[in-house]
Amino acid sequence: MHQMKRYLPLVAFAALCAPLPLLAQDAKTHPAPSEIVASAKAGEWVAIAPSELLVMDLAPDSKGKARRVVIQLMPKPFSQGWVGNIRKLAAARWWDGTSINRAQDNYVVQWGDATEKKTLPEALATMEAKDYVTPDWPSKDWIFARADGRPDAYAGAHGFYVGWPLAQGREGLWPIHCYGMVGVGRNLAPDTGTGAELYTVIGHAPRHLDRNIALVGRVIEGIEHLSSLPRGTGALGFYEKETERVPILSVRLGDAVRDVPAFEYLDTNSASFAAYADARANRRDPFFNVPAGGADICNIPVPIRRKAK
Amino acid sequence: MHQMKRYLPLVAFAALCAPLPLLAQDAKTHPAPSEIVASAKAGEWVAIAPSELLVMDLAPDSKGKARRVVIQLMPKPFSQGWVGNIRKLAAARWWDGTSINRAQDNYVVQWGDATEKKTLPEALATMEAKDYVTPDWPSKDWIFARADGRPDAYAGAHGFYVGWPLAQGREGLWPIHCYGMVGVGRNLAPDTGTGAELYTVIGHAPRHLDRNIALVGRVIEGIEHLSSLPRGTGALGFYEKETERVPILSVRLGDAVRDVPAFEYLDTNSASFAAYADARANRRDPFFNVPAGGADICNIPVPIRRKAK
Repeated sequence: MHQMKRYLPLVAFAALCAPLPLLAQDAKTHPAPSEIVASAKAGEWVAIAPSELLVMDLAPDSKGKARRVVIQLMPKPFSQGWVGNIRKLAAARWWDGTSINRAQDNYVVQWGDATEKKTLPEALATMEAKDYVTPDWPSKDWIFARADGRPDAYAGAHGFYVGWPLAQGREGLWPIHCYGMVGVGRNLAPDTGTGAELYTVIGHAPRHLDRNIALVGRVIEGIEHLSSLPRGTGALGFYEKETERVPILSVRLGDAVRDVPAFEYLDTNSASFAAYADARANRRDPFFNVPAGGADICNIPVPIRRKAK
Repeated sequence: MHQMKRYLPLVAFAALCAPLPLLAQDAKTHPAPSEIVASAKAGEWVAIAPSELLVMDLAPDSKGKARRVVIQLMPKPFSQGWVGNIRKLAAARWWDGTSINRAQDNYVVQWGDATEKKTLPEALATMEAKDYVTPDWPSKDWIFARADGRPDAYAGAHGFYVGWPLAQGREGLWPIHCYGMVGVGRNLAPDTGTGAELYTVIGHAPRHLDRNIALVGRVIEGIEHLSSLPRGTGALGFYEKETERVPILSVRLGDAVRDVPAFEYLDTNSASFAAYADARANRRDPFFNVPAGGADICNIPVPIRRKAK
């Protein structure tokens, strides 16, 4: 007769999200990624300015619970035409009263004006396909560049700069479609979208979209309010009935929101980030038998947290 | 004044899920992956025997709608010790009355006996860590092997065999943790799990788990019933309250279920699969500006469909 053991399935992933006891010896010798992050020095964290945030409040859920999604906008020099439009749209309260219209499993959740008739603010910029890529520029702080030897099926080189995953080719640098990244819906090329129609990735990184769509940010808190929505049953995961759409109460820039918490990211040029990335590629904490010996860049999510008060 | 254009965001992904009109000329010149799949010959599809399926019926959702998840079990010679246990557990109706206990965003949904006290059937096999890997064996039908040049951060070689994504190293072959794959929860090593505690991937492929956990199958229908569940608020995404768990009504082998549909997969050695994989790596259908020039193996999901009656 087998007696069922107490399961602690995948316990090493406490690493990623919650402090659970680890064997002191092993933890000291081979700290888990989360332990490396937790022990990073204060000076290795970089504050994210409230003006770099976009705060989206959805209608409360069926139990009346508030649903807030916090997005960090893409920093200069990437995608700034679209980011500028998004700032104007938020300032004009353009998204208030629009909705989440699409949830396609293992792909994206998308929001904007379902009627497709709402007038846009004036003076939005129009971008071109070439703007998906930023021409190569001095990258002294580039890490994980070619030299580190981690292969990538999608780009000659990839790495992190100012807290963001980037890929590099002859034509320049471009942001990467990892889980939680936010991009700009568009019509067939040459349309590049305005930024009024946005989506976030809720599945395996769809990196074939890199260089084909503008990426303008990433969800840093509350993605579960999007990723756990019922999947739409229409083509491409669009909701077929108006009642299935989730109303958007408001979208504001962070500096226009009174109660937005302060966030910070782990400096991607810090020693702790390098150790964290190495540990993500070579898990030796107690749960693991075999370290992978590598990691794809979307499996090295940049640590972001609320700043302690 | 800008008039909003009709958005067809990410329309090329009609490719993946739904037939939308495409320009006939472009479609003929550069068919989308879905079009290649749709035009595959009947002889390129391989039937999946009902005995290779595991059918999990969850309690109906809040609107009374049935929720069925269909899993295809891993074929020989991979993970057969655990698969054998799963067959015994299903035959013993062991999962009936258990529950979905965990939903961790961008990671896994997990099910089994939340009480951790339910007696297991007798004569379950005990496996070892070495059984996560299958020693190299004749692979004349191996495709996407080293020669094709697509790099992978996690293995020396990778490809498809009998419809499954596999990686290869000196020690042999092993299944890959792509979206929707089903694995065996376990305690700290040397425990390898019995198969009673199962999870499926609902986020970016956690390939650091490859060779560290047994993979025993994949969800081929109904994954939205798992991936859209509310995320658990406890450590590791476990549900904190019993009422949050989703009851499992029954889990049966496919040949014990009267109304299970017939499924088939696109032969991964067929010409159509090769063309499909190439198109996944080099999207040239109308939406795209720039083909990626590569694809990671988890972005080439093996086409599986209900067999036409």
